[in-house]
Amino acid sequence: MTDWPGEPSSTREEMMLATYRALCEHGYPGTSIQRIADEFDKSKSLLYYHYDDKEALLADFLRFLLEELRAELEAVPDDEPRAAIERVLEGLLPAPIDDEGLRFRRAMSEMRSQAPYHVVYHEQFARFDEVIRAELARAIKRGVEDGTFREVEPTATAEHVFTFVVGALHRAVTLDDPDLVARDRELLDEYLESELYDEG
Amino acid sequence: MTDWPGEPSSTREEMMLATYRALCEHGYPGTSIQRIADEFDKSKSLLYYHYDDKEALLADFLRFLLEELRAELEAVPDDEPRAAIERVLEGLLPAPIDDEGLRFRRAMSEMRSQAPYHVVYHEQFARFDEVIRAELARAIKRGVEDGTFREVEPTATAEHVFTFVVGALHRAVTLDDPDLVARDRELLDEYLESELYDEG
Repeated sequence: MTDWPGEPSSTREEMMLATYRALCEHGYPGTSIQRIADEFDKSKSLLYYHYDDKEALLADFLRFLLEELRAELEAVPDDEPRAAIERVLEGLLPAPIDDEGLRFRRAMSEMRSQAPYHVVYHEQFARFDEVIRAELARAIKRGVEDGTFREVEPTATAEHVFTFVVGALHRAVTLDDPDLVARDRELLDEYLESELYDEG
Repeated sequence: MTDWPGEPSSTREEMMLATYRALCEHGYPGTSIQRIADEFDKSKSLLYYHYDDKEALLADFLRFLLEELRAELEAVPDDEPRAAIERVLEGLLPAPIDDEGLRFRRAMSEMRSQAPYHVVYHEQFARFDEVIRAELARAIKRGVEDGTFREVEPTATAEHVFTFVVGALHRAVTLDDPDLVARDRELLDEYLESELYDEG
């Protein structure tokens, strides 16, 4: 799970990459269709043809990220619950985090803050949360069933982990502090070690 | 620890109450000095006399909240660590949360998202985080020392709790879901029960 899935292989993916770059560069408040167009190598008019406004383009960007995330999760083998959890956490809360990674997560956190005002953002973030929590819960359930994890309640533990991750990111991006990501990731690893992995 | 400390007893407090009301009503993006003035019973020109712009007024509002929080924390007796922790959590993450409480926390979360762009906000939120984490760590330390809590590392546990709270609030206010506050508060109570209070 990387922030950006690799070389774009279609015009839509090129638009999405331009959007990603604009968000990293300008944050959500500073991103406009014009600034996305500035990052787009093909004809700018294509962007305006496909999207009426910034919100429509960014909603499609969120949809695209979710499709990528789902495809990636489906490609993952089912047999190593701990590796599956670590993979999700490394995608959300990589330690150490680089500057681009922090900027991208700031833009996402800012976009999430707009969810109360844009129903399409709300829909995508609610889905995103659901996909992540379900993946975590599924991995935890497998680990509990195969006896490698403690006997926890999978959905509750998944929810705890996910809420913690959202808090770690919101704190780090708003205080512009990459060390907070590293420190919180360490706390999360300790939590999982004692709550989940350690069989007592 | 309530959202609003009670009847205003000075002109400054009346300005702060007007700010609180405007934030609850319009959110951070929709709050302007004019809208704060609309909530202010005295002469509007007083507001413009004291504050150059929205950012200056809101920075003072954050300062005011922090002073209130500090005064409140100092007034609390030192002898019941568990009650001290519960008091902080009930202030941050009250369950059940009412509509005004959720709106106010949304405005605060939106203002926090502006911290990378306004150094005065950054300063106040960094202090706010520090005050809350220090209070939690102090209470945890006392409980560990008097033998009522497990032998945890107080600053690490305080940080885990605080990060979780920030995540719970950011998720709930952005998805406009008061039930998320209640669910996450329950998960946090379970965490404290097993990590901290339960002496095994």
